[in-house]
Amino acid sequence: MKSRAAVAWEAGKPLQIEEVDVAGPKQGEVLLRMVATGVCHTDAFTLSGDDPEGIFPSILGHEGGAVVEEIGPGVTTLKPGDHVIPLYTPECGQCKFCKSGKTNLCQAIRATQGKGLMPDGTSRFSLNGKTIFHYMGTSTFSEYTVVPEIAVAKINKAAPLDKVCLLGCGVTTGIGAVLNTAKVEPGATVAIFGLGGIGLSAIQGAVMAKAGRIIAVDINEDKFEMARLLGATDFINPKKYDAPIQDVIVDLTDGGVDYSFECIGNVNLMRAALECCHKGWGESVIVGVAGAGQEISTRPFQLVTGRVWRGTAFGGVKGRSQLPGYVDQYMSGDIKLDDFVTHTMGLEDINKAFDLMHEGKSIRSVVLF
Amino acid sequence: MKSRAAVAWEAGKPLQIEEVDVAGPKQGEVLLRMVATGVCHTDAFTLSGDDPEGIFPSILGHEGGAVVEEIGPGVTTLKPGDHVIPLYTPECGQCKFCKSGKTNLCQAIRATQGKGLMPDGTSRFSLNGKTIFHYMGTSTFSEYTVVPEIAVAKINKAAPLDKVCLLGCGVTTGIGAVLNTAKVEPGATVAIFGLGGIGLSAIQGAVMAKAGRIIAVDINEDKFEMARLLGATDFINPKKYDAPIQDVIVDLTDGGVDYSFECIGNVNLMRAALECCHKGWGESVIVGVAGAGQEISTRPFQLVTGRVWRGTAFGGVKGRSQLPGYVDQYMSGDIKLDDFVTHTMGLEDINKAFDLMHEGKSIRSVVLF
Repeated sequence: MKSRAAVAWEAGKPLQIEEVDVAGPKQGEVLLRMVATGVCHTDAFTLSGDDPEGIFPSILGHEGGAVVEEIGPGVTTLKPGDHVIPLYTPECGQCKFCKSGKTNLCQAIRATQGKGLMPDGTSRFSLNGKTIFHYMGTSTFSEYTVVPEIAVAKINKAAPLDKVCLLGCGVTTGIGAVLNTAKVEPGATVAIFGLGGIGLSAIQGAVMAKAGRIIAVDINEDKFEMARLLGATDFINPKKYDAPIQDVIVDLTDGGVDYSFECIGNVNLMRAALECCHKGWGESVIVGVAGAGQEISTRPFQLVTGRVWRGTAFGGVKGRSQLPGYVDQYMSGDIKLDDFVTHTMGLEDINKAFDLMHEGKSIRSVVLF
Repeated sequence: MKSRAAVAWEAGKPLQIEEVDVAGPKQGEVLLRMVATGVCHTDAFTLSGDDPEGIFPSILGHEGGAVVEEIGPGVTTLKPGDHVIPLYTPECGQCKFCKSGKTNLCQAIRATQGKGLMPDGTSRFSLNGKTIFHYMGTSTFSEYTVVPEIAVAKINKAAPLDKVCLLGCGVTTGIGAVLNTAKVEPGATVAIFGLGGIGLSAIQGAVMAKAGRIIAVDINEDKFEMARLLGATDFINPKKYDAPIQDVIVDLTDGGVDYSFECIGNVNLMRAALECCHKGWGESVIVGVAGAGQEISTRPFQLVTGRVWRGTAFGGVKGRSQLPGYVDQYMSGDIKLDDFVTHTMGLEDINKAFDLMHEGKSIRSVVLF
């Protein structure tokens, strides 16, 4: 079938709107009709060419809200008409990782997903016979997309897809980092580095965890108001201090924070986030994605004296098991999404979403199909 | 009173046996008569001059077995004749750290201990009126030493002090890293880097935790036999492989180990130990002490994909609460110490203990008073 899609023909160039061909779902796959998709920094990172695993031409996008249009052979857990969120981290329930009980990083289709292909090693997208690759197994910048059944979370039909699409990546990542990965306890002191969509979501997570003190850190003070509305209690602009920001935070918190979260992808801030943790027990979680080849470092003494360094992907959330619950928490008012959608636009204007992001003017732009 | 002691007059020089003056215990302090002391790499590190916090002249030693000789005013939990192990990590039970329930790093006397002084800011050691400093709050290379009450673990009188002195540092550190810090589960796969006293003790800990596979890593294959006797199941000499050792271990273990322990103090091996951990859940614990100013590094992707980087000091063991239990486990045969004592000598020969250590010929030398 034909589908309107924003194609990334090559790195560093704007997306182009095309009528691409989408093949029907094969064994274990489903065809989705996209209703809305967020535009995330990771899409911009890949489009820029800095992502060493980026493949072109491809259809980007991984933060979608969709409806099942058609199911392939063998699909048993979804039917046409179901409302869903596609998952770039699938959940097969069968692999070593899914069965471990210790991680959400299902590896069932990792190899083909990383190559921009469906599990059978082929693409469902083409234009004039030329293959166009999938992206993160989701390719939500297309009106129609094909995904494996194990990479789809079925959600409450009453939920507005143009809002809960944000639970497909950023918001879930931030909340999950706090609740799943760090397991922040009531009363804890928390520092959050970077107040983009993920950092603001981490603030939400800290509020849900009943943290006692939530320190929001950003060099752009315009972001403090939204952080305050969500529940942050302290606000630090590192540019206003001469001392390293970790020393500032240690001083302000009688020895350091119980938990910190780096939500930017800056390796220097990852170090600061670790070193602002309290001796003896402070834990730092890396949420942001650093540039290719960059490394983190610290003195081992930081760890020997009790700090813990972790990371998280998709907030440690198992998509099929847990994401429907996140949607329900949005519906009950426990998770806020509406204020995160600062801009909406049609697919034809999707390049504006990237511009707004690069200019720091949006939390999230949502494309409506 | 007079006491025979091995004095470190200056960095890089052999210890000298002297008759030093020891002042009696002040408020909250006890005078100990040392029966035996192990000689540990940390003593050698400080004596070498590489320890930026090293203070001279001082009386080194921190792995002692002793008898309480006299108690100062206000001491309520000890009496003359008690058998004890002095603690370089005290346990006051009152500070923020002790009360946290999350760490053994009591900070009650940290400031003065770091300066080679008792909590009142003075030293109990002198020679001809010249101050000699304490070391790690223990100074076990002296027949008589003064320590704070909170830095003493009272143990079973039936335990041989010339063996259980090793529980004052190395053996407890290795076992505790596995049981307290990593909390290794039955069936887990474990890699231990470095088969000195601490690494061999970590093997003991892994056996106590019922680990399923215990991989011993060292470039000196002479150490494999002792590792095997203690319960290691696999033996790897990194020099026999061209590939980075983390890749070798990942291949041998279907994706990596569940837990790893760096027991040497080499920052490159700390990285290898992290990177040989299994994606999704592997945890690496830094046990060794790196040289001053050295840093660890890795790609943040290692953490984002689920690995955890930790460290431990004294194995996370609370000395007054937990160490008596370790002594009892030695008495019941669950902890092995006898084979760790490869050499014994009188105080006058203590410099030989350092020579044996530097030549890699000893696990532990124990000095008998």
